[in-house]
Amino acid sequence: MESETMPTHLEHFTDKSTPVKVPAREFLQIGRRAGYFPSAVARIPEGETEVNVWCSNDYLGMGQHPLVLAAVHDAVSKFGAGSGGSRNIGGTNRLHVELERELADWHRKDAALLFTSGYAANDGALTVLAGTPADTVVFSDALNHASIIDGLRHSGATKRIFRHNDVDHLARLLDETDPDLPKLIVLESVYSMSGDVAPLAEIADLAERFGATTFLDEVHAIGMYGPQGAGIAAREGVADRFDVIMGTLAKGLGTVGGYIAGPSDLIDYVRAVSRAFVFTTSLPPANAAGALAAVRHLRGAEVERRRLAENARLLHSLLNEADIPFKSSDSHIVSAVVGDDALCKRASARLLSRHRIYVQAINAPSVREGEELLRIAPSATHTATDVKKFAEALAGIWLDLGIPTASERKRSSSAVKEAV
Amino acid sequence: MESETMPTHLEHFTDKSTPVKVPAREFLQIGRRAGYFPSAVARIPEGETEVNVWCSNDYLGMGQHPLVLAAVHDAVSKFGAGSGGSRNIGGTNRLHVELERELADWHRKDAALLFTSGYAANDGALTVLAGTPADTVVFSDALNHASIIDGLRHSGATKRIFRHNDVDHLARLLDETDPDLPKLIVLESVYSMSGDVAPLAEIADLAERFGATTFLDEVHAIGMYGPQGAGIAAREGVADRFDVIMGTLAKGLGTVGGYIAGPSDLIDYVRAVSRAFVFTTSLPPANAAGALAAVRHLRGAEVERRRLAENARLLHSLLNEADIPFKSSDSHIVSAVVGDDALCKRASARLLSRHRIYVQAINAPSVREGEELLRIAPSATHTATDVKKFAEALAGIWLDLGIPTASERKRSSSAVKEAV
Repeated sequence: MESETMPTHLEHFTDKSTPVKVPAREFLQIGRRAGYFPSAVARIPEGETEVNVWCSNDYLGMGQHPLVLAAVHDAVSKFGAGSGGSRNIGGTNRLHVELERELADWHRKDAALLFTSGYAANDGALTVLAGTPADTVVFSDALNHASIIDGLRHSGATKRIFRHNDVDHLARLLDETDPDLPKLIVLESVYSMSGDVAPLAEIADLAERFGATTFLDEVHAIGMYGPQGAGIAAREGVADRFDVIMGTLAKGLGTVGGYIAGPSDLIDYVRAVSRAFVFTTSLPPANAAGALAAVRHLRGAEVERRRLAENARLLHSLLNEADIPFKSSDSHIVSAVVGDDALCKRASARLLSRHRIYVQAINAPSVREGEELLRIAPSATHTATDVKKFAEALAGIWLDLGIPTASERKRSSSAVKEAV
Repeated sequence: MESETMPTHLEHFTDKSTPVKVPAREFLQIGRRAGYFPSAVARIPEGETEVNVWCSNDYLGMGQHPLVLAAVHDAVSKFGAGSGGSRNIGGTNRLHVELERELADWHRKDAALLFTSGYAANDGALTVLAGTPADTVVFSDALNHASIIDGLRHSGATKRIFRHNDVDHLARLLDETDPDLPKLIVLESVYSMSGDVAPLAEIADLAERFGATTFLDEVHAIGMYGPQGAGIAAREGVADRFDVIMGTLAKGLGTVGGYIAGPSDLIDYVRAVSRAFVFTTSLPPANAAGALAAVRHLRGAEVERRRLAENARLLHSLLNEADIPFKSSDSHIVSAVVGDDALCKRASARLLSRHRIYVQAINAPSVREGEELLRIAPSATHTATDVKKFAEALAGIWLDLGIPTASERKRSSSAVKEAV
């Protein structure tokens, strides 16, 4: 039958001759050991081995903090393993409510709303906010990440993309838009792949001038920057000029889930109509308990933030010394540019096999082709010795594999410019 | 400014005079006490009070099962509070892999893939499967729930809606469609609001005849029906005729998360390209551990399934005796039809205030207007005495509030028919 008729839907996946190609992708299986981060046990072809993890998003190590673990254990014992329902149907525990209050207070907003993931928070909130009212025009940074892109796409709103962090371009797009139309500006504070920071005050000025609502994704910043770790907007003293702050309970808070914080009416509206929120069993109370303990700890303690900043600074200086090209020294996100898919995978594989260091290669579609990179995440749990060992290993690999250095990249890019 | 110009985007939410109406919605805050389900402590205006919960989706009480709680505690102590990354970037723990293997084995499929929620599983998988190849035509049951609808919408696929559980209508739609186009049929086994069961064998016959892939959502069935609790398709002996089985780690398994199980190549494809999967921090290993313990227990033990079935049967017969109209006696989902928004809320409020029984009123948009209902969920943790008390309380409220009985609804519906 197969040779005479068109392939069925299923055969598009199972039959190698159809145009749908199933990408080969292997996930490295690792067991991070609570109390010993960033050390983990990885399963490699030769068996199990101890590795030093350099790509976890648990940047502050809150996923192993004793206060967090105690809160999780306690809530599991009291309330069980799950919430038992969606938030509206039997699934609202005191801990959800307390965590929402704590997050709102942290960001100095009226209210907050929890989702089961950061992806769901951006998708669920932006589908509603960009789609209401229906003639809303959205202004979105060109490097906004996937969950923002998807939420905006699902909203059906008219979208204008401004060049990454380019305030003049944003101003021009706002200026070209009918002043009577409702406007929403969506951006991140720290960008996930480039690690650079948005010009928040200037964007807030524009928003004020054009009457636009501002939606600021701080997932790579909360816990890590600003007074009490409340984020970059708090650090720059402009948090009150951003209407909605979006964050995650993973990453800096070490658990799982996402949230938005903002004006009560807006939050109530999302709470009532966002389908990703309404039609989902809520987070287990124990996950909420862990995140709550993490926020409370990080509001009062500087130690994790200071360690992370020191490690990031040390790494920046060592990579500069070793002439390894990386994208930004604004934040703890250090993207070392390899610029080639196969080379990037080899660098990652060699770090693992020779140095027992785990950094995932980031290839398309997460970054554009030609911008393949090692996304390096120093954390508060690394020691200075870890950082030095890591930089040394990376420099060796750069040399061995002949990956272009920062100077070489600069020369070839100016050569290209001259040729043009 | 506000009076002379159009409202800004934000004012559409915060200004009461704009057309955007923010719905009032209060979530009842309850603390389910592990070890004492279905008892919980609810926060009502008079203070805290003990209630008997009749609307939890933790149908089998696995959220408090000692084996589940022990597995969660153990994984928290070993691996911490979170996974530390997306599945591809440092967030794949042994427990994710083991759980995926267990789920695949349970449904007798090659492979399975975890998502952070059931909503994300349907949305993330169907966006990909309905959208690949791009000319796929999807046949979707009219009562499929929100996450299916959203996934299909986000896929951009051409969609043909067949009347709920209507095999003849589905056959006609398939027959009208170009035989060369790839086809996907999407349905649930037990429907979430009506509690009735799909004619699986007949739909599998049609799928075979027309070469369509079948995607079966068993979220309200897994753990609860069939040998080893593998679901309705397993009970009817047709599981191998459905290509993809979708399930949840909440509800029957008592924790949180969602999954699909199916052929390796198809699962690998979703794993590589589904944005809701790729761009999400994975479930904490402890959540996976809880779900794994729940599946393993439910594959070997009949006690929870038997208790749930007995309670459902007893409730069906008591409601019939009391002449209370409900939608289906096919399953444990018992939707008592009130048919009026305000009356439905009053019935729910009175159950709580007079009888300390919590059942959430389900109004539009979760059900159509005029079909407002109390969605009653007996569980394995209720005793026969709980069931009898509940039925008695409900009968009293039906009488007090003058809600139409089953006989009255039948009479008025036949009167309408005669008038037509």
